[in-house]
Amino acid sequence: MSNARPVDNFVDRPTFVTHLECGLSGERYAADQLHGLSRAGRPLLVRYDLEGLQGAVSKDDLRQRPADIWRYREFLPVRRTENIVSLGENMTPLIEAPSLRAGTGGLFIKDEGRLPTGSFKARGLCLAVSMAKELGIARMAIPTNGNAGAAMAAYASRAGIEAYVFCPEDTPEVNVREIAAQGAKVWRVNGLINDCGKIVGAGKEPMGWFDCSTLKEPYRIEGKKTMGLELAEQFAWSLPDIIFYPTGGGTGLIGMWKAFQELKAIGWITGKLPRMVVVQSTGCAPIVKAWKDGVEHADLWPNAHTVASGIRVPAAVGDFLMLRAVRESGGFAIAVDDDAILAARNEVSRREGFLMCPEGAATFAAYQQAARDERLSPDETAVLFNCASGLKYELPRADASIDLTKPLDFDAMKKA
Amino acid sequence: MSNARPVDNFVDRPTFVTHLECGLSGERYAADQLHGLSRAGRPLLVRYDLEGLQGAVSKDDLRQRPADIWRYREFLPVRRTENIVSLGENMTPLIEAPSLRAGTGGLFIKDEGRLPTGSFKARGLCLAVSMAKELGIARMAIPTNGNAGAAMAAYASRAGIEAYVFCPEDTPEVNVREIAAQGAKVWRVNGLINDCGKIVGAGKEPMGWFDCSTLKEPYRIEGKKTMGLELAEQFAWSLPDIIFYPTGGGTGLIGMWKAFQELKAIGWITGKLPRMVVVQSTGCAPIVKAWKDGVEHADLWPNAHTVASGIRVPAAVGDFLMLRAVRESGGFAIAVDDDAILAARNEVSRREGFLMCPEGAATFAAYQQAARDERLSPDETAVLFNCASGLKYELPRADASIDLTKPLDFDAMKKA
Repeated sequence: MSNARPVDNFVDRPTFVTHLECGLSGERYAADQLHGLSRAGRPLLVRYDLEGLQGAVSKDDLRQRPADIWRYREFLPVRRTENIVSLGENMTPLIEAPSLRAGTGGLFIKDEGRLPTGSFKARGLCLAVSMAKELGIARMAIPTNGNAGAAMAAYASRAGIEAYVFCPEDTPEVNVREIAAQGAKVWRVNGLINDCGKIVGAGKEPMGWFDCSTLKEPYRIEGKKTMGLELAEQFAWSLPDIIFYPTGGGTGLIGMWKAFQELKAIGWITGKLPRMVVVQSTGCAPIVKAWKDGVEHADLWPNAHTVASGIRVPAAVGDFLMLRAVRESGGFAIAVDDDAILAARNEVSRREGFLMCPEGAATFAAYQQAARDERLSPDETAVLFNCASGLKYELPRADASIDLTKPLDFDAMKKA
Repeated sequence: MSNARPVDNFVDRPTFVTHLECGLSGERYAADQLHGLSRAGRPLLVRYDLEGLQGAVSKDDLRQRPADIWRYREFLPVRRTENIVSLGENMTPLIEAPSLRAGTGGLFIKDEGRLPTGSFKARGLCLAVSMAKELGIARMAIPTNGNAGAAMAAYASRAGIEAYVFCPEDTPEVNVREIAAQGAKVWRVNGLINDCGKIVGAGKEPMGWFDCSTLKEPYRIEGKKTMGLELAEQFAWSLPDIIFYPTGGGTGLIGMWKAFQELKAIGWITGKLPRMVVVQSTGCAPIVKAWKDGVEHADLWPNAHTVASGIRVPAAVGDFLMLRAVRESGGFAIAVDDDAILAARNEVSRREGFLMCPEGAATFAAYQQAARDERLSPDETAVLFNCASGLKYELPRADASIDLTKPLDFDAMKKA
């Protein structure tokens, strides 16, 4: 009898945040205070004392720690261990898929469906809710296409914070139900995610909630940054050559790009960074259009629609940060249609036994399209992001049955 | 451009299987050959050269490797790295739940829903399919309450092995669909899992498939054994005091107990092993009855029914191995009813934001019951196993909605 405890769950470690700055104007904001958007109406980025960080932790240190996002604690903003709100944010696997290669020498899928609440949204919301706890926030609200709301609901309940969630009425049914089951209040709205965002904005005063919308809250990027840190560590502090990322609000793309800059600044990675590829749907492709038009900001996409609801985001406040990452990295932006998305999901699932979510499947469709367009090279290794568990989405019914009151018909089985 | 590759994915390592032996009679069988049940009709257990193993790997070695089941390669039966069929079997997190404590000083939930196909079945089927590949099997069949079939479908498709799956007609809908989506042939059967098992048995000759039923195949236990290895490593090579395990076929319970014996034999753990607790449903509790009756084998449970379909297993070929583990460990067997299971799921979900599957929730209900029965001690640390993602199961509908054509009513929201 020992009251046994797991290893390193969670030890106190130093953190190195110096300040926040506006992603557009560079204006500085104090650390450890409540912030939404900058005065310019743009996302705030968290800045660190990278020299201090470099002296405090080594690659070897990391390898000795449990394989979850908190191994990167020095790169994250939570000051006090007691404020970490965790549901077990394990490092997600890289699955090699040689049979699906088209145009690159290596192909890996990073399966983000393994995180709490079954999606990569857990990374961002885990940090947002931990910081909300640290800053004393009692009530949060979020507009969502499903998975972000589910993640916020889960972490907020665990933290004892009240959660309000607004989603389009055609959000995947399981998302709406899990949000409610996980203790949040949830409403279906006859509009899109930006309409839901307006409700959250309008309620700030009367409801006194904190607006946790994508990039209107500074710490979700820091959580998503761990995708880039993991990828670098998993690839032995080199990096893959090209990353296909399903892009709605773009926090993950911006977060990974920020991770790579920070790792480069402390000398843990060197050389060329991966080409960053924005993957959207032809039914909602504002960033693809802006990239093609060579502009810095994207127009609102009218009549947005796609089966990949997670990337149905008609307007994104971090558009310029995404476009900057794509351009600086020598990447590109590409849109695929719903037929290609569903065909990609079915192909990967049947051939590799790996059930992707529609948004993840969009990255495989985009990868195939990029190969046909001769944008890839056999010298390259590609990584696709599967951002959520495929189990959350409608699958075709399978109707074969056996009636035990009748003799077994193995001949029929052979022909099935 | 580097054709970058992930660290250690997968390096060749020695393996140490010497032979297999009947779990009941001890009769020996050759390694590296195809086996089903023993001549006594009982499960075969894989035996290792533990001395050789001990000399080949250290606890420190393990910590340097990626956090997945293959870090325990020396403890596993796959000889050739090329035969590993992997979908990324990451170490699953231990989630502390202090607010749910009742009777023990520590409480952790091990969340097995993070594995490929969203359940702990991935551990066993990953090993079974890898060994099937190693042994040249071309066609496999399995009876399932859902998750085992989904796992076999996924790994078999990835390995290029044909898969036939038979499930009760009231198997959770998402399971049937994912099995088909992942490339297997699946039938709904108007019976229970033992009826499905009879179809698999009857088809061995005419269909030429390998019977992958629980414990009729020797390697699923070895996969499940990794739950015990992980737990030991996560608890710094001590162990928790009591483990609540949702028990159908019992592979995991038997596998963990085998892991603890092997770790003890090589001196990596010492002292008292955890009390092993079999958790079943009052609607299907053959092992609980056998434990109470003090017998070695369980009778078939008539009219089995429970919302926790994964533990609706009326008869288990490894009954005596489960009962042995419970008795040797000083544990017990306990049944909870469906109302308690659903209440437990709702409580954990609303309070901790953690959505358990019904079988996992049964372990929390059993833990609460054990506390009321004064079977627990504040000196103890308990671990509950959540065996699958809660997203696979029906959740209550949430119906609140907002009509954007009308003014927003924040007063109504406050009252929601």
